[in-house]
Amino acid sequence: MPTDPAATAPAEPATPELLHQGITFPEGLALDCGAVIAPMTVAYRTYGTLNADHSNAVMVCHALTGDQYVAEPHPITGKPGWWEAVVGPGKPVDTDRFFVICANVLGGCMGSSGPREEKPGAGGQPWGTDFPSITIRDMVRAQKMLVDRLGIARLLAVIGGSMGGMQVLEWAATFPDMVFAAAPIATAPHHSAQNIAFDEVGRAAIHADPDWMAGRYWEDGRIPARGLSVARMMAHITYLSEQALSRKFGRRLRGASALTFLEDVFEVESYLRHQGSTFVNRFDANSYLTITRAMDYFDLSAEHGGNLAAAFKGTRTRFFVASFDSDWLFPTSESRALVRALNAAAANVSFVEIASDKGHDAFLLHEPEFHAALGGFLRGAAERAGL
Amino acid sequence: MPTDPAATAPAEPATPELLHQGITFPEGLALDCGAVIAPMTVAYRTYGTLNADHSNAVMVCHALTGDQYVAEPHPITGKPGWWEAVVGPGKPVDTDRFFVICANVLGGCMGSSGPREEKPGAGGQPWGTDFPSITIRDMVRAQKMLVDRLGIARLLAVIGGSMGGMQVLEWAATFPDMVFAAAPIATAPHHSAQNIAFDEVGRAAIHADPDWMAGRYWEDGRIPARGLSVARMMAHITYLSEQALSRKFGRRLRGASALTFLEDVFEVESYLRHQGSTFVNRFDANSYLTITRAMDYFDLSAEHGGNLAAAFKGTRTRFFVASFDSDWLFPTSESRALVRALNAAAANVSFVEIASDKGHDAFLLHEPEFHAALGGFLRGAAERAGL
Repeated sequence: MPTDPAATAPAEPATPELLHQGITFPEGLALDCGAVIAPMTVAYRTYGTLNADHSNAVMVCHALTGDQYVAEPHPITGKPGWWEAVVGPGKPVDTDRFFVICANVLGGCMGSSGPREEKPGAGGQPWGTDFPSITIRDMVRAQKMLVDRLGIARLLAVIGGSMGGMQVLEWAATFPDMVFAAAPIATAPHHSAQNIAFDEVGRAAIHADPDWMAGRYWEDGRIPARGLSVARMMAHITYLSEQALSRKFGRRLRGASALTFLEDVFEVESYLRHQGSTFVNRFDANSYLTITRAMDYFDLSAEHGGNLAAAFKGTRTRFFVASFDSDWLFPTSESRALVRALNAAAANVSFVEIASDKGHDAFLLHEPEFHAALGGFLRGAAERAGL
Repeated sequence: MPTDPAATAPAEPATPELLHQGITFPEGLALDCGAVIAPMTVAYRTYGTLNADHSNAVMVCHALTGDQYVAEPHPITGKPGWWEAVVGPGKPVDTDRFFVICANVLGGCMGSSGPREEKPGAGGQPWGTDFPSITIRDMVRAQKMLVDRLGIARLLAVIGGSMGGMQVLEWAATFPDMVFAAAPIATAPHHSAQNIAFDEVGRAAIHADPDWMAGRYWEDGRIPARGLSVARMMAHITYLSEQALSRKFGRRLRGASALTFLEDVFEVESYLRHQGSTFVNRFDANSYLTITRAMDYFDLSAEHGGNLAAAFKGTRTRFFVASFDSDWLFPTSESRALVRALNAAAANVSFVEIASDKGHDAFLLHEPEFHAALGGFLRGAAERAGL
């Protein structure tokens, strides 16, 4: 069962039905773009127990469409937490040993300040597209305020995959003394041109939906479900390898006859449509626009004068970099570039490329070799930290 | 200048403004799905001169969004023909020597029978979504009727890339005695699960556009421009390699400031939006749905009892198979599978993988090594054919 060491006031509800645990910071947060979000709320969940000297905390950072419900049923879908394969009692991130924190990212739609939350001083209206442009670093700054508030001076580890991995890198680069160990997984130090292009198509699909209404869909209680669904369907293809798609569906037809004009003749189509339509019930379109932009802006090297190694200069953080060989969205070559930069900074870094044919999604799935490596890294880090 | 040896009546106009050269067959065509399209029109262009014994004809098959305007300005966009790098006087497909034919595919929107053309007996209404499901083999059967009518008993060669290559394979499998040489380029004997999935997202984007109106958009003079544009944008990413996208755009920003909420901050986004918006002016959404379905159905092995080699049993056609090493939509592995099947059928086959970082689009672009190989193959075939 999740436990929470800090007695905090609940955040504003994300939706009328749902109340997320969180902390509201009246002083707010100054963003990279120059705007200030005040007050600012960070919704979060914790698992396990914080030890007496507050030295066993592990921050888990979620990916684009993830949220803080890492290791418990999702409050909207009722499905298991998104990383129950990794986080829990006796799991690689062992909640019998570690105190795990996961915050909904700034700009998200599960209780942290974001486009769906109330805009301060706007008479109860949500931010919508008035929500400022945010960066991965802004997300991490918000998490840092949470960690400070929880009374944790140093995180034993920061862990995350995909966009979660980008946050891990920002944590290590921006707050190096607060990060004893860092595990950026299936990620990259910047978004590639291809990744940006796919994101742009997803955003164009949302903009193309008349129910988007220039971002003010909430005024009429609408959601741009068709556009968001198309964006999700396309993104889902990029999360899977060709092998995974083939194994799951091959070219199997749903009906008896191939030559009809049905809308979902191939099983893969039916599956993708399902992915798209279930997604719109739990995710906010303006959040999707905001967060994909933050990923596209992310360029750790550019933040450090074009020198990626400079981001990690003098670091004492222990790094565990992992990639999956069938991941074509964040290919191993990008993890290798990261490792080279860490080596150039004389960092303590281990790197593993996991053999898997599941594509980018592998980091979320049953991958025993990956789990063993990550668990081993964490146990080693804990030992070095004197736990 | 294009020449046409057959005196034919012009086809029905595809749009009020544009008259395409074509032949209408009153007897029509019986399709794989069981329906009959009668009358059926094949719009086409020719380049070069048919020789006295009609032995120098080369059929060029176009890809998904191509058309019959191979080597002359496009009548709608005014841009150069889509394969002027390959087809023309002194080019690899030398129109000083060969008589080149290219037909708009069945289901297309440039004058051949398709969803935008008038439905027989419907009082002047277009087919729209009443247009039957077609296959790549149906497209080839329609081309075969054209070739018969032109008085050509055997094609010196059938050449095409991508979906054009699928037609090449169908030509060789279905009418082997009519194909002296065949050049399937950047193609595959079936569409992969990933290709089907991308197509499905494109179709979903069109279906999601309220201006699609269940396919009856022509009734109000509308076009589902936003949906078709999103489909095109996404497909365009799959035509390029990550390297090509990076070289073209990298992560360059359009404006001075990165941290705005502009819709086209990155150059790649602006480029993709341009690709999407220009496409809708020349292509019909129902055609896009019809033709992508035909590609998805394509499975030459399944048409021959699950044995791809059986499709080419006893063939005397000379094959030239070409792939591009950065093409991830139709990767070299699929060309290799094709070559293995041709070898198992004891076919005469040469195979070349071209080093290029331009992705699938390479077959349309300036690729001297590819052009030299294709030109050499054609010259050799012509020599063997006694030309």
